[in-house]
Amino acid sequence: MRIVVAGGDGFCGWPTALYLSKQGHEVTIVDNLSRRKIDDELRSNSVTPIASLEDRVAKWKEVTGKEIRTFIGDLNHYDFLSEVFRQTEPEAFVHFAEQRSAPYSMMDREHAVYTQSNNVIGNLNVLYAIKEFAPECHLIKLGTMGEYGTPNIDIEEGYIEIEHKGRKDLLPYPKQPGSFYHLSKVHDSHNIMFACKIWGVRATDLNQGIVYGLHTEETQLDPLLVNRVDYDEVYGTALNRFANQAAIGHDITVYGSGGQTRAFLNIEDTVRCVEIAAENPADRGEFRVFNQFTEWFSVKDLAERVQQVAKEEGLDAQVKQIENPRIENEDHYYHAVNTKLKDLGLEPRLLTDEVIRDILKTSIQYQDRIIKENVLPSITWK
Amino acid sequence: MRIVVAGGDGFCGWPTALYLSKQGHEVTIVDNLSRRKIDDELRSNSVTPIASLEDRVAKWKEVTGKEIRTFIGDLNHYDFLSEVFRQTEPEAFVHFAEQRSAPYSMMDREHAVYTQSNNVIGNLNVLYAIKEFAPECHLIKLGTMGEYGTPNIDIEEGYIEIEHKGRKDLLPYPKQPGSFYHLSKVHDSHNIMFACKIWGVRATDLNQGIVYGLHTEETQLDPLLVNRVDYDEVYGTALNRFANQAAIGHDITVYGSGGQTRAFLNIEDTVRCVEIAAENPADRGEFRVFNQFTEWFSVKDLAERVQQVAKEEGLDAQVKQIENPRIENEDHYYHAVNTKLKDLGLEPRLLTDEVIRDILKTSIQYQDRIIKENVLPSITWK
Repeated sequence: MRIVVAGGDGFCGWPTALYLSKQGHEVTIVDNLSRRKIDDELRSNSVTPIASLEDRVAKWKEVTGKEIRTFIGDLNHYDFLSEVFRQTEPEAFVHFAEQRSAPYSMMDREHAVYTQSNNVIGNLNVLYAIKEFAPECHLIKLGTMGEYGTPNIDIEEGYIEIEHKGRKDLLPYPKQPGSFYHLSKVHDSHNIMFACKIWGVRATDLNQGIVYGLHTEETQLDPLLVNRVDYDEVYGTALNRFANQAAIGHDITVYGSGGQTRAFLNIEDTVRCVEIAAENPADRGEFRVFNQFTEWFSVKDLAERVQQVAKEEGLDAQVKQIENPRIENEDHYYHAVNTKLKDLGLEPRLLTDEVIRDILKTSIQYQDRIIKENVLPSITWK
Repeated sequence: MRIVVAGGDGFCGWPTALYLSKQGHEVTIVDNLSRRKIDDELRSNSVTPIASLEDRVAKWKEVTGKEIRTFIGDLNHYDFLSEVFRQTEPEAFVHFAEQRSAPYSMMDREHAVYTQSNNVIGNLNVLYAIKEFAPECHLIKLGTMGEYGTPNIDIEEGYIEIEHKGRKDLLPYPKQPGSFYHLSKVHDSHNIMFACKIWGVRATDLNQGIVYGLHTEETQLDPLLVNRVDYDEVYGTALNRFANQAAIGHDITVYGSGGQTRAFLNIEDTVRCVEIAAENPADRGEFRVFNQFTEWFSVKDLAERVQQVAKEEGLDAQVKQIENPRIENEDHYYHAVNTKLKDLGLEPRLLTDEVIRDILKTSIQYQDRIIKENVLPSITWK
């Protein structure tokens, strides 16, 4: 299958591109390299030293014989995007190419505006490009479980049947996102649903949980293929960030009580979920929503699991509650459905101590690269 | 009260600014005059010849002795918007300043991108400006009943209590907007709800129905104060457009079967609703949604009412079904709640033949100004 992976230089996109290439798909990466530029802006970095995209794909070809084409450019530039569609004629367009950090979107007005404009308009361009150049192309769009927020009822996969005053309808699940970033994904979902309805676009919205882990079988084939790992307050997410804190002897910092419950999955399941979506395309006009996660944890429980594994590795890390920079419920109901991907063949890899140990070991290996000032939160929602 | 009316040069904004000024409020109009520029772009016009904003407010002062300040500029320019906030210190910010035509947003990609970017980012800037310069200021934001679409259950005012799998929550009402314009309003609503939650912004989202009529007591004080009336396929809306068609001897054109049911209100109720919202501000942190309409009609029923009144005026207009350029249900359930504004004192003026006659007469008076090629739809949703 001809597959474009937009955002294919990023944390989820890169291993996905490699995995799909390995399966024999004709993969093209589109990326504006913005994640690398934001590292410069934030004076941050990946724990692992990552090669340039050019070197990465050259190494991939050397190791596997498989070619990955690359286009460096921005989805917000429609002429560029049009050229990508004309040259690649994609059958599936996997769209990871959005600013994906909630704290980044909350830094100030300009970062909020950038996030919403970049994500919403970029995605709108993709919809128009599919309509114009590849109407059969299946859009596989990365959403987030954070679109739902933490309602006091079970979270369904995109839609909910509502009975109200004696009548019934199946309606889009109400969204309560918790940052300008999460809001941008909600806006995207609404735009995509509409494009499916009016133009017959095929779309799958993957409402992904928080991704942990870093290696996949493919990224481990050569050091030049290594995936990036974020540990800082802006792009580092729970679990990966905790492991990095433990590795450098820092407290494992939990925001507030740590009672916040979130959905998680392993990066190796991310790549598999995208493959499943691609192999089972949505129908023409169908807007399909899959909740892409395998388990949920409270942040505090996760912190304690990391602490335990760190202890076994001889690292004495304490779990410490710090003031929550976000406005969010720390004590809430959480129950989310995630059967659709499993019905299509996903076999979840649940979180094991081995996975935590693996992240820890990578962090220890590269601990000299970690910039300690970047670990603690300074961006607040207030 | 110090009130900013953003979009105060437009069809709803102008009569609202006059009405609030008459009530003794200190009114400032902010407008980028985009609606006038779009007339140039579309080679369209208002049926009524409208004066420049400068002449309008000068005449208003001459007639009433009341001053309305004006700022010409764009909400998307934050430096400009900051200056408006610094100079006016608003207690209420009435936000009409968005691209408000569904067909305009559906013309092509660039118009869709313009509409979403202009509306969503402009509104995001307003939220930041309130946070930065006037945290007590009450945002009165014009939304649309079109945000809800046509669900098969009753439409509530912004929120709905959902019982699901034995649990309950009061959640944002699911939205199914029908154009990139309507989507922009949904995006706005989500952004505002979040700003209320994290910054304690006071906000009222007025989900307005389709506005008909043109004159208010204030706009009739002098010909220079007349309101604009749109009749073209892009900005003309049902009822006003029908009356204009009848006035020039054109068929009254209904899209498809005309079974589409929509909520409506008189422009004189629009101005009153905004006053009610301003006089009863939302609490700090409250995101309040009012459904701002007084009755609903099927498009076909409306067309027939206009036909009847036209006949009484000696005009022989036929109701004609033409191919629907939109993708929408033409036969659907419709029942929407609108009690909140009435509970606060709105006394609805229901649609009378007199109102239709009034629009008809204005159209006849200015029929030479009507550009006939602009009446029929050419923009499709497909």
